[in-house]
Amino acid sequence: MIRKYVYGNPIPTPAVVQNIEAEEDSVQYLTELEMNGKIILNYSMENDDIVYGLGEANRGLNKRGGLYRSFCSDEPNQTEDKQSLYGAHNFIVITGMISVGFFVDCASEVTFDIGYTSSNILNITPGCGDFTIYVIEGRSAYDIVKQFRKLIGRSYIAPKWAFGYQQSRWSYANEDEVREVVKKHRQNGVPLDAVYLDIDYMDGYKDFTVSEERFPAFPEFVKEMREQGIHLVPIIDAGVKIEDGYPIYEEGRQYQLFCKRADGSDFVAGVWPGKTHFPDFMNSNARMWFGSKYKTFIDIGIEGFWNDMNEPAMFFTPEGVAEAKQYLDNFDFNTNEPWKFFELKDKLTGLSNRMKDYESFFHNMDGRIVRHDSVHNLYGANMTRAAGEAFEQIAPDKRFLLFSRSSYIGSHRWGGVWTGDNQSWWSHLLLNIKMMPSLNMCGFLYTGADLGGFGCNCTRDLLMRWLGFGIFTPLMRNHAALGTRKQECYSFGDTEDFRSIISIRYSLIPYLYSEYMKACLNDDMMFKPLSFVYPSDNFARTVEDQLVVGESIMIAPIYEQNAVGRYVYLPEDMLLVVFKSSSVRRYQIMKKGMHYIQAAVNEVPLFVLKNKLLPLCRTAQSTDALDTSMFEIIAFTDDNIEYMMYEDDGISKNYDDPAHYVPFAIKDMDGVFGAVSPKKIVKLALF
Amino acid sequence: MIRKYVYGNPIPTPAVVQNIEAEEDSVQYLTELEMNGKIILNYSMENDDIVYGLGEANRGLNKRGGLYRSFCSDEPNQTEDKQSLYGAHNFIVITGMISVGFFVDCASEVTFDIGYTSSNILNITPGCGDFTIYVIEGRSAYDIVKQFRKLIGRSYIAPKWAFGYQQSRWSYANEDEVREVVKKHRQNGVPLDAVYLDIDYMDGYKDFTVSEERFPAFPEFVKEMREQGIHLVPIIDAGVKIEDGYPIYEEGRQYQLFCKRADGSDFVAGVWPGKTHFPDFMNSNARMWFGSKYKTFIDIGIEGFWNDMNEPAMFFTPEGVAEAKQYLDNFDFNTNEPWKFFELKDKLTGLSNRMKDYESFFHNMDGRIVRHDSVHNLYGANMTRAAGEAFEQIAPDKRFLLFSRSSYIGSHRWGGVWTGDNQSWWSHLLLNIKMMPSLNMCGFLYTGADLGGFGCNCTRDLLMRWLGFGIFTPLMRNHAALGTRKQECYSFGDTEDFRSIISIRYSLIPYLYSEYMKACLNDDMMFKPLSFVYPSDNFARTVEDQLVVGESIMIAPIYEQNAVGRYVYLPEDMLLVVFKSSSVRRYQIMKKGMHYIQAAVNEVPLFVLKNKLLPLCRTAQSTDALDTSMFEIIAFTDDNIEYMMYEDDGISKNYDDPAHYVPFAIKDMDGVFGAVSPKKIVKLALF
Repeated sequence: MIRKYVYGNPIPTPAVVQNIEAEEDSVQYLTELEMNGKIILNYSMENDDIVYGLGEANRGLNKRGGLYRSFCSDEPNQTEDKQSLYGAHNFIVITGMISVGFFVDCASEVTFDIGYTSSNILNITPGCGDFTIYVIEGRSAYDIVKQFRKLIGRSYIAPKWAFGYQQSRWSYANEDEVREVVKKHRQNGVPLDAVYLDIDYMDGYKDFTVSEERFPAFPEFVKEMREQGIHLVPIIDAGVKIEDGYPIYEEGRQYQLFCKRADGSDFVAGVWPGKTHFPDFMNSNARMWFGSKYKTFIDIGIEGFWNDMNEPAMFFTPEGVAEAKQYLDNFDFNTNEPWKFFELKDKLTGLSNRMKDYESFFHNMDGRIVRHDSVHNLYGANMTRAAGEAFEQIAPDKRFLLFSRSSYIGSHRWGGVWTGDNQSWWSHLLLNIKMMPSLNMCGFLYTGADLGGFGCNCTRDLLMRWLGFGIFTPLMRNHAALGTRKQECYSFGDTEDFRSIISIRYSLIPYLYSEYMKACLNDDMMFKPLSFVYPSDNFARTVEDQLVVGESIMIAPIYEQNAVGRYVYLPEDMLLVVFKSSSVRRYQIMKKGMHYIQAAVNEVPLFVLKNKLLPLCRTAQSTDALDTSMFEIIAFTDDNIEYMMYEDDGISKNYDDPAHYVPFAIKDMDGVFGAVSPKKIVKLALF
Repeated sequence: MIRKYVYGNPIPTPAVVQNIEAEEDSVQYLTELEMNGKIILNYSMENDDIVYGLGEANRGLNKRGGLYRSFCSDEPNQTEDKQSLYGAHNFIVITGMISVGFFVDCASEVTFDIGYTSSNILNITPGCGDFTIYVIEGRSAYDIVKQFRKLIGRSYIAPKWAFGYQQSRWSYANEDEVREVVKKHRQNGVPLDAVYLDIDYMDGYKDFTVSEERFPAFPEFVKEMREQGIHLVPIIDAGVKIEDGYPIYEEGRQYQLFCKRADGSDFVAGVWPGKTHFPDFMNSNARMWFGSKYKTFIDIGIEGFWNDMNEPAMFFTPEGVAEAKQYLDNFDFNTNEPWKFFELKDKLTGLSNRMKDYESFFHNMDGRIVRHDSVHNLYGANMTRAAGEAFEQIAPDKRFLLFSRSSYIGSHRWGGVWTGDNQSWWSHLLLNIKMMPSLNMCGFLYTGADLGGFGCNCTRDLLMRWLGFGIFTPLMRNHAALGTRKQECYSFGDTEDFRSIISIRYSLIPYLYSEYMKACLNDDMMFKPLSFVYPSDNFARTVEDQLVVGESIMIAPIYEQNAVGRYVYLPEDMLLVVFKSSSVRRYQIMKKGMHYIQAAVNEVPLFVLKNKLLPLCRTAQSTDALDTSMFEIIAFTDDNIEYMMYEDDGISKNYDDPAHYVPFAIKDMDGVFGAVSPKKIVKLALF
């Protein structure tokens, strides 16, 4: 049961697809308070209530004890105190004696104080008085999530090749470096499906251009790579370089498609290209125009993109620089006062992503002029929409890989997200684990983190352990920043360990893709907290670091340095499978309860659920090369069971064809259990 | 067996007290390499080797997988990538098939690459060619630590009152605020022994002055507080304000006791008072002079001090400011180049703690002129020494509370350390846990972290859980920074939970103090990794988050938000005691092996070891009020056992009087086990 309540005159967002009549009476469950002119929606939590949600947010799977500010922010240093990350996903579910969900559809900032100021008080504070709130009642948290997911519509569906292993770095300098990356993966037998082109592939960081110097024959190069099973995935930044003669700049100016200052001039912000204008993604013409530019790349065979810097991140604005300059001109460098120097530093570091700048430009929302801060959280989302809608025009029957750094609920229908710039910290591996189900709750199914960490130097063991989790995430991309240690799989010695771990991924792809597709098509989650699958198990409610992935497996990633294993809780008997490679495994039936499982750095444990079946195919060097005519089956049952695998061509959009479902079954055949399927079963490991 | 190897002509440090003849041949166990003119001492680790040590350092108890740079640094943001914290403790023990320890006695920076660049390679790189290395062979890691501790001499011994609960904040503004803090603790029944005076108690941040405005009758106020059982503990900063007529400044100038620039002028650095000179703590006259100043406070009844800002931290120098100014004067604010703005920011943020500044001043080491960077890690240590040696002069038979932010091995003989500015992060609670045994290895026994975290806002549950660990650390101080949420125990509601948790501490003080004293007097550790106590238990080697505290108990603190308990590993059968307050407890005998123990936020679990005995006294509102004539005994045995409690007046220095040892025993008395002791046993919980 979903009820909708409208406050003031909300700016429309693309979040919701169902038409629900607004209630007339006051909002259920929440008490309205007012403070400093803002409405606070207050809820008293019980001691044992858990609060799920908030998608790409910091801290735990259970969000209690934190303060979260939905305000899309370029924040790579995700320490525990950080309140805003790259996305803004205002959906929470409180679950305990009763379960209730809230979705605050509000384009400006919203804060969630979830037992932070006072242990049992939840306060939701929208940044302005104009917003819509949806109140969702249901039998359980999971039931509420499923209702919510129907409310916001079917998630973007990635092509199957996007389930391959992907390698990125800011930046591979030129054709030869990319060739070298591919060659080294192939030489070492490390499977690979995609290489990313970070900002330096462009000519002067100009969107939809390619540096002639670095990639002199780009169309041919795209083709060459494709022949080796590699997709090149270029980055597209939000800001359009101000440069006379650059067509995108000229067109944007001419057709008034950029964000404006109060005086009507085009707003200027400094990002990678230097001074840029921001396309007004809130405007449908601007979206259509910018989206159409992706065609340049699509026409030469590019099938995937990542949209970046679209919070939008700003390094500086001329106004900010002028203020800083004036401050500096008046600064008394002879001061004896330390606070003055702290202020001086703050003035300079504060040049980036200034709130004052966000308050100084305007969008034309198809006639309605709105100041940026009131729709800040929609900006990146609408860039994703621009691309997604364009793809539907350019190639209506084809799926593209598309994901974004900034996002808002609604943009999940046009693209995925990666979790933004992170660090080579073990704590960020754990954060990655905890974010996955939260992102799924909010509709983001094609998602993952920068494996190994973007900033800072990664160690061998961290990358191994992170890959050990990453082999389960739809987006499996290794990415690292300029100036950090090389992070490709062949950079750490004993490359066979990396080959093995990634080979496991490729064996799992048919299962992972199937579970991903079913989650997409049924508005369901692929990554679930234990409590969603075992709702009557009180201990399962408290587990933050184990996840059920699809219908057949539970994972318990190891995320601590020097650990030889970890504790796990099994809500029922399960089959432990420790993979050393796609084909080398050990098995152990484990009883319901608590255990310590051992897994070396080069091993990946997973658990097959009771009465479930896990199909594995033979590994390959790329998704193109996967042979899905033959399967090995691991099953933990002594009864008839069935697994329905979803399989399609992975690129076209006829998702709903019933022919895409392939049954696998364990059946009693004259007193002996065996596996049957239209596929060839080459091996059965039955427990 | 300790061997000493001397490279070049090392600057003397106060680290070692034993006179060992230097070996003539080349260093054992290590391979000498050379890179960029620096000597690298290289060691090949086995896969299963554990590396302990480094005292106050980042990351795990097992230091493998990290890069550590010993270079005392003002670094409150202790994220995983940070290589330098406040202390420099160059002692490591490698333990596996063989065990060997290394102590690099080197006053300049030293880096330890412990499987960071390459998983099994350990590289020690002293910053210069002049250093001494001690190689220690032993039967076990613990044996090596004990040899090392004898090498570096008996640790500083704190007064017993310093085991009371202590409250701090930057800053309590004046007398009335301090009175209010004390009153609220007393009113709420929260025990308290000390209140700290952070920088604002001073007159213009001038060392050894008191603001007349804030504390108009300071000597009377010290007395008033003492009558309420409260010790006031003032901060002493390293920098001496440049102000005509300020006696300390005038004397320092007159007698040439400040650090000098190359041109012989007094080096200037901006810290809290604005421009200051740094006392030349490397010089024995300067130490004696500065140390004598503590008498001002001692004469009016002050018995404890904390030395701060002595890395030394610098906010700016005139040279740095001039450079920044010049840079700014030449900066093209019309630039279109983002990197220029990043450089601009770096220029300003880089004003603090500039390496160039550390390279620009000099010490007079009793005749030998040395540049600061070559003795950087000794500066804070020698400030501690200045105070410690002064106390011995001022009141030879009396113990003072003294701890420092910066430290080097050697300074552990004159004072303790707190682990410096940290954050209200759960990860810093865990870091606190992991640091304790490492600090003990390096001689720092009187130590602890800012409970609840210094920077950022603390939540109720974080403070509760942190106190749940803090009740075991010798220094138990709640401290928070300017601008953060109030963090006193009465600031979060339901204060009885805080009263209860701190009441447990006071019941434990006789045991904790006894174990602390025995560790000090025997050059032993109070906080031990499990592997030191159960060396033949292979799993115990891997446990990072459980510690043996003294001879009778093991602790397993809960350090995750929203956790209802945690997993523990018991290397033998143990008695779980969950304290809800000093007197309300539940008991459970637990078998060797793995368990999940539950403990609510307002409960503290501990484990009594097999055949050990834990004495508890009745709790009190301050250490003065503790009645140690009566004890309750918890014991886990069915045999005769004995516990030797160390007890003295807690303030004088006749440590070695045999009368200080009080035996407690469980004995078979006519077929019934009972407790006997010269003390009155009011209750026996025998398991």
